Amino acid sequence: MDSLRINLEADDIPTHWYNVVADMPNPPAPPLGPDGQPVSAERMLAIFPGNILEQEMSAERWIPIPEPVREIYRLWRPSPLCRALRLEQALGTPAKIYYKYEGVSPTGSHKPNSAVPQAWFNAQAGVKRLTTETGAGQWGSSLAFAGQMFGIDVRVYMVKVSYDQKPFRRSMMQTWGAEVFSSPTDMTQAGRDALAKDPDSPGSLGIAISEAVEEAAGRADTNYALGSVLNHVLLHQTVIGLEAKKQFAKVGDYPDMIFAPCGGGSNFAGCAFPFLADQAAASAPKKTRFVAVEPASCPTLTRGHYAYDFGDASGYTPLMLMYTLGHDFVPPGIHAGGLRYHGDSPLVSQLLKEGLIEAVAVQQLSTFSAGVMFAQAEGIIPAPESNHAIRACIDEALRCKETGEAKTLFFNLSGHGHFDMAAYDQYFAGKLQDGEFPDADVQAALASLPKVG
Amino acid sequence: MDSLRINLEADDIPTHWYNVVADMPNPPAPPLGPDGQPVSAERMLAIFPGNILEQEMSAERWIPIPEPVREIYRLWRPSPLCRALRLEQALGTPAKIYYKYEGVSPTGSHKPNSAVPQAWFNAQAGVKRLTTETGAGQWGSSLAFAGQMFGIDVRVYMVKVSYDQKPFRRSMMQTWGAEVFSSPTDMTQAGRDALAKDPDSPGSLGIAISEAVEEAAGRADTNYALGSVLNHVLLHQTVIGLEAKKQFAKVGDYPDMIFAPCGGGSNFAGCAFPFLADQAAASAPKKTRFVAVEPASCPTLTRGHYAYDFGDASGYTPLMLMYTLGHDFVPPGIHAGGLRYHGDSPLVSQLLKEGLIEAVAVQQLSTFSAGVMFAQAEGIIPAPESNHAIRACIDEALRCKETGEAKTLFFNLSGHGHFDMAAYDQYFAGKLQDGEFPDADVQAALASLPKVG
Repeated sequence: MDSLRINLEADDIPTHWYNVVADMPNPPAPPLGPDGQPVSAERMLAIFPGNILEQEMSAERWIPIPEPVREIYRLWRPSPLCRALRLEQALGTPAKIYYKYEGVSPTGSHKPNSAVPQAWFNAQAGVKRLTTETGAGQWGSSLAFAGQMFGIDVRVYMVKVSYDQKPFRRSMMQTWGAEVFSSPTDMTQAGRDALAKDPDSPGSLGIAISEAVEEAAGRADTNYALGSVLNHVLLHQTVIGLEAKKQFAKVGDYPDMIFAPCGGGSNFAGCAFPFLADQAAASAPKKTRFVAVEPASCPTLTRGHYAYDFGDASGYTPLMLMYTLGHDFVPPGIHAGGLRYHGDSPLVSQLLKEGLIEAVAVQQLSTFSAGVMFAQAEGIIPAPESNHAIRACIDEALRCKETGEAKTLFFNLSGHGHFDMAAYDQYFAGKLQDGEFPDADVQAALASLPKVG
Repeated sequence: MDSLRINLEADDIPTHWYNVVADMPNPPAPPLGPDGQPVSAERMLAIFPGNILEQEMSAERWIPIPEPVREIYRLWRPSPLCRALRLEQALGTPAKIYYKYEGVSPTGSHKPNSAVPQAWFNAQAGVKRLTTETGAGQWGSSLAFAGQMFGIDVRVYMVKVSYDQKPFRRSMMQTWGAEVFSSPTDMTQAGRDALAKDPDSPGSLGIAISEAVEEAAGRADTNYALGSVLNHVLLHQTVIGLEAKKQFAKVGDYPDMIFAPCGGGSNFAGCAFPFLADQAAASAPKKTRFVAVEPASCPTLTRGHYAYDFGDASGYTPLMLMYTLGHDFVPPGIHAGGLRYHGDSPLVSQLLKEGLIEAVAVQQLSTFSAGVMFAQAEGIIPAPESNHAIRACIDEALRCKETGEAKTLFFNLSGHGHFDMAAYDQYFAGKLQDGEFPDADVQAALASLPKVG
């Protein structure tokens, strides 16, 4: 019956992000245009600033974190690393369980780690406005917060069904001064097309992305920001793992296994990549295993194809080499909204393909039972996305109980569940179910994979 | 453009609570029974354990915090003290503004500081079940969490209108294993009476308290727990101010003025009393002013009478000497649910009566505008209760701007607003209003003050 929080001082916030590209056995496969040729930087400059594109393309191991970004990080970072002693005791496992708690941020998740630098680099490039899309609202609220910090106007296209059903994330964005639109709107061609097709369209992430990109591409003072998948987003999230390494050093421990939820990949990458660096440098005290945990209903890494595909549903983006279920694939409705993505980060995908990391898929009900067990032991109610990592970590802790191994397990508690109690409510009411892997839908979506070159 | 968080280590969690009774110029006025005589401990033992009653009556300056309670505190404590440099800059004030952030707890507010020891002391006394009431759900969820930590069953009578309209706090309590009932129920006489009178009764805090007390009084294995007002609750909250003192010492500063929201009083007391101790001991580096901030629509301390009155609406509790608007007074609906109480803590009331602290009342709209300004500068979206303290602190910072004084201001950011976005939503939609002080209602309620002795 003890618990432990390992804190750091403000000075311990990393001064550089870690770029895993420098340590990959093979260079990352480049994004391709419709002609099968690598996409030119010029084309990307329509919606991203040069300083961010530099990061996107960089092979430098360490990228400096600008001091104004560190100053905003200081509003909630360093985040605590906690030893889950009460959970260990409840499980009766000899394993040691640690978690990094990112729910202490203003938006309650890890998303501001990238929203803040994206807003700052855009401000430095003279950009006045950022557009983005949001589903459940975690990324949209983080960019709203970040824009407010640096005086950038943020315009969020929020999927209509969420806009209507989740007014709280919307008011959160408004509190930070962002404008939020119910997508599809009549302000863009993509929105008007969607409305012409169906005046009562509930919207989709695909339509919202198209609207946000269209507005950004059409205005010189406006750029677009994405909350996961791309290299620079994964880069920014490495503050999580870099801090965690200092915290493990403080208590003289080091993870045998690392678990993180994986949708677009930035959550997993932020937690895992800095430890992967030790493996690459052969400076790690032990051989660590890295486990990306995804929902069984959207099992991109465990059941997808490794192929070039579009990053969005409408085919506006460059082609990326990644694990994908096909860009036409619409995952069944599960509550871990942040994990419902047909593809995955190209960096995470390549590391999996090359055998440096692992992936596992877990069923929805088992993730909620893990979240409730965690809340009852450690107090914090986790976000449904985080419950995926908790499930996999608990499963390993129970394996350790059988084998008697005292492994050190580490997972990323990427956010609190205070905005997700409706999902818990449904779980308690027995209204949630596990899903079969939708084989037919995936086969159909994979059949439409673009032909490259 | 800088910000600063002052952290402490787990070892810095206080080992003792501070009891202000030891330093009050006059002993606290005793609670009285219906006969005008001080209430006997025996009568209270029906619903409180002896170890808690000892704290309630104690005049000892320091009360030890049991190690198992400190171990649960460690799940989120010590909480950070933050310098609001970005807010200072936005205001252009020479004042220094600090806030203690209690929103990092599992329930997002300061309430677990007392829920945890209350659950533990009851468990030590062999109690198996705790009953309580809750309106918006902040206290109920904190007691649910605390009960889960020590294996105590928690039964929460939740006001029906909140039960129906705020399912999220309810699911939060269920996550921690508590049973939640829509009050009035048919399980108690008080509930059945209320339903007989009005089968469609929306419930009230008064009815819910009566139900919880009735169940606790009628079962030997069951006690009752209260979230504010009483001496032992204020005592437990002093961990806030005790930590803050260490944090101020770390940066070599000390508050000239302290602001905290004031409803039942535990929020204010927890923040202010440990600094008041320095004033009593003449060991303070400066003369500090202590400001309790209450809503203009329920201005107990600024407009109430100092008189013996019941603590609850139904007259079940002993009489307490306090500022009161009359136990029949029903405050107009404002969203800072935690501040809607007709009376106030007897300790806070007596300190105000004796001139050791001050009180100020603020209007609702001005508290939301202060909360939005804070969120836009510092990132964190505050609970509506906390916005009251922020308003008064900002007002003082603006006075400092006029006078050029570089005062050190300190307020308690008692919780985050992630469960209160509906109130922000109404504020942005222009649906919230300021309230006139309801003179006629208060005069009517005061007319029914009980006659004592």
